[in-house]
Amino acid sequence: MSTSWTSFGGDLHLDLTERRAAGAGLRAALEDALREAVQDGRLAPGTRLPSSRALGEDLGIARNTVVEAYGQLTAEGWLSSRQGSGTTVARRAVPEPVQGRRPAARTAPRRQTARYDLMSGRPDVSLFPRTAWLTAARRALATAPHEALDYGSPLGRIELRQALTHYLARVRGVRTDPDHLLVCTGVTQGLGLLCAALRERGARTLGVEEYGLPPQHAVARAAGLATAPVPLDADGAVVDRLGNRADAVLLTPAHQFPTGAALSAGRRAEAVRWAREHDRYVIEDDYDGEFRYDRQPLGAMQALDPERVVYAGTAAKSLAPGLRLAWLALPDALVEPVARLKALADTMSPVLDQLTLAELITSGTYDRHVRRCRLHYRRRRDHLVAALAERAPHVRVTGIAAGLHAVLQLPPGSTPETELLARAQRAGLSLNGLTWHRAAPSPADTAPPALVIGYAAPPDHAFPAAVQALCELLRRA
Amino acid sequence: MSTSWTSFGGDLHLDLTERRAAGAGLRAALEDALREAVQDGRLAPGTRLPSSRALGEDLGIARNTVVEAYGQLTAEGWLSSRQGSGTTVARRAVPEPVQGRRPAARTAPRRQTARYDLMSGRPDVSLFPRTAWLTAARRALATAPHEALDYGSPLGRIELRQALTHYLARVRGVRTDPDHLLVCTGVTQGLGLLCAALRERGARTLGVEEYGLPPQHAVARAAGLATAPVPLDADGAVVDRLGNRADAVLLTPAHQFPTGAALSAGRRAEAVRWAREHDRYVIEDDYDGEFRYDRQPLGAMQALDPERVVYAGTAAKSLAPGLRLAWLALPDALVEPVARLKALADTMSPVLDQLTLAELITSGTYDRHVRRCRLHYRRRRDHLVAALAERAPHVRVTGIAAGLHAVLQLPPGSTPETELLARAQRAGLSLNGLTWHRAAPSPADTAPPALVIGYAAPPDHAFPAAVQALCELLRRA
Repeated sequence: MSTSWTSFGGDLHLDLTERRAAGAGLRAALEDALREAVQDGRLAPGTRLPSSRALGEDLGIARNTVVEAYGQLTAEGWLSSRQGSGTTVARRAVPEPVQGRRPAARTAPRRQTARYDLMSGRPDVSLFPRTAWLTAARRALATAPHEALDYGSPLGRIELRQALTHYLARVRGVRTDPDHLLVCTGVTQGLGLLCAALRERGARTLGVEEYGLPPQHAVARAAGLATAPVPLDADGAVVDRLGNRADAVLLTPAHQFPTGAALSAGRRAEAVRWAREHDRYVIEDDYDGEFRYDRQPLGAMQALDPERVVYAGTAAKSLAPGLRLAWLALPDALVEPVARLKALADTMSPVLDQLTLAELITSGTYDRHVRRCRLHYRRRRDHLVAALAERAPHVRVTGIAAGLHAVLQLPPGSTPETELLARAQRAGLSLNGLTWHRAAPSPADTAPPALVIGYAAPPDHAFPAAVQALCELLRRA
Repeated sequence: MSTSWTSFGGDLHLDLTERRAAGAGLRAALEDALREAVQDGRLAPGTRLPSSRALGEDLGIARNTVVEAYGQLTAEGWLSSRQGSGTTVARRAVPEPVQGRRPAARTAPRRQTARYDLMSGRPDVSLFPRTAWLTAARRALATAPHEALDYGSPLGRIELRQALTHYLARVRGVRTDPDHLLVCTGVTQGLGLLCAALRERGARTLGVEEYGLPPQHAVARAAGLATAPVPLDADGAVVDRLGNRADAVLLTPAHQFPTGAALSAGRRAEAVRWAREHDRYVIEDDYDGEFRYDRQPLGAMQALDPERVVYAGTAAKSLAPGLRLAWLALPDALVEPVARLKALADTMSPVLDQLTLAELITSGTYDRHVRRCRLHYRRRRDHLVAALAERAPHVRVTGIAAGLHAVLQLPPGSTPETELLARAQRAGLSLNGLTWHRAAPSPADTAPPALVIGYAAPPDHAFPAAVQALCELLRRA
């Protein structure tokens, strides 16, 4: 059941046999074949098609089937039929491909063209436990009730919220329960929902640490909040400066991002007092709280006051960013507004990964995996610090021994940061300068140059070379 | 299997027998009974519930079943559990019906307290191909590059966008390519992003079919667009009335939701002309385009003009709502704004389900699954139509033979819709009246009553009884 000559003058081979074998109806098979031919250009726009009678004879099928197929494809816009001129391939072509990847463009091209990837904020995705994940997924799907696959609570699956309640209490000292936990699609979404909920309650300004993550500031502004930078010192954010300058504050207490201080106990208490004063909230971004290397990390500051501190956690660093799995432990007053906004945004987060993570956590596999990663990243950091001490002793590694990144401070009078970054790019090193992280623009290069080094991202085999290239860059700075 | 003394001090009778007889699982039956008791006030807010052990003993069921039921009801907001104080009836009522595509808080209590679930918009989740899904997930994870697990394009994984490009062309005649496809977390998110992007471009009003999905209208309003109802007739939306009343229009061409007409070829062409005139857009919600029973469905109207019609598709009906997997085929001009807003909302959609669906599609498993579902739902519809013809001949089933729902029109002078719905609830039937779907509020009960029946949701064993109960209700209307 095929034709390749008469009707199309030999330039088109139209084969229905395979499609018929695949179970397609005669008319459907013909439509598919024609659609494909138009799509891939074998049938050029304007091409006049054979008459239904001719094609029907060539293919040995009823003329009516061809007529119906032509009608269908015309209705779909692939073909057009004009009085007199018979049926032709529609002139309008499929649109040209375009590049629509704005935000990805921020990092993707740099890290993909660079030989050495030292961008901060990204884990070593080669550590993702694929087999363990699949095992957990199988277990989860085997026991999940049918309703788990249906529309459900905007808070997320109960199995995961129960598992997280216990895990977060045990590992981070978070005080919450399943009906105050909301599963979100990454901390980005969680922060957006929070900012929108606070805006609804009259908030206008979000305090942010003076060095942070500009994309997070963009999320806050998109939700209608202005951002007010909060100064930093060795004890973390100087929250006593907050006063009335903000209605809520976003902090990274476990490990300031990126400068690396841990928020002191005093400052934590101060922030909570500030929040209690006038019905304000602290948002605790615990992005890498599981990765402290020198000692037991301070617990989450949320435990100081679950009604004033919103805890935000994620699986982006411990498992993979691609999972987009994060969670908020919410004060009672924010559960309804945030859940309502979550439902409005996307109804709820996808359930299968939630069920799988719940299984990973309850089975203890997640703990073992996190321990493995902690050891891995600790070695990475030790390697980096040792190499710098030996080959670029004038560079100071700031911040506590934690997380997946470090800030390297160069002495005053060194090569300016912008020049350093240009050299890094020429050397195939992809990394950010500290200036990029400023919450408020500053006169360029007033401060001594500093680089933010993510030591997690490169695969093991590439890491030593990346560190060597970095040391080389710094030696000449 | 009932208790009325020990645990509740004699003031509550909890009977699971009837529900068990109706085919409910043990845990589901217990949840229903408790939910009902909270709903009708027999269990007052603040009431402390018996321990899972005590209640389990009273009912003679496993303690774990009680624990799970308590957990589920806590997640739904009926109960609350605090360390120390055990489980109590929530003081805060369930959050206001959250907007969004059939979110739990809106339907769950109704559908789960009801014996017969005939709510529209939901598939039979028991058809979800768990084994095939896991097989595809294993294949996908075995071959996925590490970077697939990292931060990536806001458009979604290339593997899925490539698979969808061919699938949508073949099955729905959609004309697009991977650079114009964006994977979103359900059509709810897709619509929200589109409305926000259109608002950025100056749009103020979204035309919506006069009967539709109120949660979608809420999404549009949340994005800053007013909604303008477009009248409907037997040919679908009367788009020639649009004129300058809207800057974009949301249509359900394959199968108007809920009234069930297919948008005629003439109307499709008209809508596209309207959009071309003044740089306007048509949003085509193809929510159930794969489920046409009487003949090959008309292809997507997007093919008439990919630069004027945004195509929105979903796996919510063909696989499961819980996946939150949907996609937009975007005009060139909207790729950048929508991708930017997607990145701002949640960076990108989770990758593992995307990789799995791509594998499912390319392996042909998805096609086989959809065919199986089509047959299943077609039988459901035939059963419903036959039963009505025999036992409620005065009721007219409107709309084409397609989808997962039907609208039942009652003759003028029948019992008013509100009364019908009250009776339905008393009869344990959960369903919506047509009035609920109105885009603009109308004087209640002016039109003859009509019921929207979702015939997909009930499990097979419960479906005949549900239809019987429905016929009984209609016989007396």
